[in-house]
Amino acid sequence: MRLAIVGFGGVGRALLKLIEDKKEDLIKSGLDLKVCYIVDIVGGVYDPNGINLDNLIQFLSVERDISLYPNFGSKDINFNTIITNNDIDLLVEMTPTNKETGEPGMTHIKESLLNGINVVTSNKGPILLAYEELSNIAFNNNVQLGIGCTTGGALPTINAGLFDMAGSNILSIEGVLNGTTNFILADMEENETTYEESLQKAQKLGIAETNPTLDVGGWDTASKLLILTNVLMNQNKKLSDMSIEGITEITPQDIKNAAAEGKKYKLVGKTQLNEDGVSMSVKLEKLDDSHSLYGVSGKNKAVKYTSDTLGDLTIIGGASGLIPAAASVLRDVINIHKGYDFVKK
Amino acid sequence: MRLAIVGFGGVGRALLKLIEDKKEDLIKSGLDLKVCYIVDIVGGVYDPNGINLDNLIQFLSVERDISLYPNFGSKDINFNTIITNNDIDLLVEMTPTNKETGEPGMTHIKESLLNGINVVTSNKGPILLAYEELSNIAFNNNVQLGIGCTTGGALPTINAGLFDMAGSNILSIEGVLNGTTNFILADMEENETTYEESLQKAQKLGIAETNPTLDVGGWDTASKLLILTNVLMNQNKKLSDMSIEGITEITPQDIKNAAAEGKKYKLVGKTQLNEDGVSMSVKLEKLDDSHSLYGVSGKNKAVKYTSDTLGDLTIIGGASGLIPAAASVLRDVINIHKGYDFVKK
Repeated sequence: MRLAIVGFGGVGRALLKLIEDKKEDLIKSGLDLKVCYIVDIVGGVYDPNGINLDNLIQFLSVERDISLYPNFGSKDINFNTIITNNDIDLLVEMTPTNKETGEPGMTHIKESLLNGINVVTSNKGPILLAYEELSNIAFNNNVQLGIGCTTGGALPTINAGLFDMAGSNILSIEGVLNGTTNFILADMEENETTYEESLQKAQKLGIAETNPTLDVGGWDTASKLLILTNVLMNQNKKLSDMSIEGITEITPQDIKNAAAEGKKYKLVGKTQLNEDGVSMSVKLEKLDDSHSLYGVSGKNKAVKYTSDTLGDLTIIGGASGLIPAAASVLRDVINIHKGYDFVKK
Repeated sequence: MRLAIVGFGGVGRALLKLIEDKKEDLIKSGLDLKVCYIVDIVGGVYDPNGINLDNLIQFLSVERDISLYPNFGSKDINFNTIITNNDIDLLVEMTPTNKETGEPGMTHIKESLLNGINVVTSNKGPILLAYEELSNIAFNNNVQLGIGCTTGGALPTINAGLFDMAGSNILSIEGVLNGTTNFILADMEENETTYEESLQKAQKLGIAETNPTLDVGGWDTASKLLILTNVLMNQNKKLSDMSIEGITEITPQDIKNAAAEGKKYKLVGKTQLNEDGVSMSVKLEKLDDSHSLYGVSGKNKAVKYTSDTLGDLTIIGGASGLIPAAASVLRDVINIHKGYDFVKK
């Protein structure tokens, strides 16, 4: 299988290393991955026979600008080169997320699918804005669109919804989908700190960003829930259809009161199928220990599906970091190679 | 896709109803399921054009003996008819489990695979005794062997290990794999009863069998763990390689002491990859609430995988009953139809 990687940051670098480290295992399972393009904003590398990853990884350990790579690196290699040559099977789209326009990912994904190239993406923007359109394009062009990395990274939320619940209708989705807020809430409980103190700790540890609004305001949870809802419950909703609250108002006293009842606060994203469609919300909820999301600790994430015929399914996990993120991209690549349908009619 | 069902008890009947109820959804997703054979010990039904399930379900609501079915029922229809005609795509094998010889399931599965027929089975016997051999036969004959229903029914243990951890090596498996023992332990904790009292309650509720040894002695957990280990960690182990303890010795005092430490007893099956192979055990373990199996309540089941690149994954669920069991058979049928590889090289 011939790959192109577009957007080359930390996860891209981890993916290269993973493909190289897992080479023998992958070949044994029938998958010979050749990375033919790596494209970033500064230029790229193109080797029609597959880039020598070992060499490239060595080179990148001392030099950041990939277009300077002596073997096949160039300032002139960009996304259009890939479409013009049309000599790959799958595009890994990892440019930065833009939730307003989805660009440049939107164009990369659309053009690739229209040209018969499978896509795996970690880029939430285009999926949030246009999943239905993109999946229709994929379906009509007989290619796949793998988006597992957009809704919890290593936590196989999409996989579980599509493959583990196959043949069943998902009636509700309930998730602790944001590791940063879960860390802050756990820290407040454990160390009896204020929200501000735990946020600062999370920022110091690199768990929360300098501007934490997307996480603590509930927007990251909302984005992931929206994608899960649209993909797994066949909806075509927008963020504006959802009621969204964050964790910024919570006090140590709230957490103490909950603990006295044997409960824990979690930031829960929830979609419920009703008679007249779905309702979607993100808000703080007090869960007791009979709830399967109660035990989602620290930076972990989890999602619970209820269904008509397979009962409930809760999945907990989702290691964070570059390698798990890269591994979740690789998982989609492998599942597409194995011929699995990600895209429904 | 043309099916034969061999072994026709409660789950088989639930499966017929499910296929009929889900007909429109299945056709919409490209899967037109025709049940051409239903074979039981007394005889069977064969309609080369697909049995009219609506009619048959009506008939079976008043008559148990399927071979008396006026349309295409006969005492002469048996498994050999299926192999001789060789006009189906997939065999659903659901004869009773025999853990000594695996028969008659073993022969049914082997013969089908050798004749190029995919198999989905809920029958633990043959899988416990000969998974490696059977999966090799499947691989060499370019067909699939779906065994999701043998290791936790609706809980997608095999699915999660194969598809959700794709590209990753599973380093350990830890599971609360038996609902009956989990119910007894939870009941003892909640109602401060003795083991005998809670066992009797479970028997009254139909959760435990009259002879509960397989469950309470740890054998059911061991069987499921063994299958998961062999399939997901590429081993070829036997039950005799495992250390197995049940829950029969536990006292109310043990449970009280654990609760005082904030812990719960669970019957845990565990496989660990070590330098010199794998170690496998089934025994009572005290878990605290930071362990993702702590919250597996009542009759629920769960499994936790650790991996090299995707972190930990815990899945909790596994509704019991005829419909979830049938739905887990249907899930494998759908995933095979979609072209997914269950069988590794």
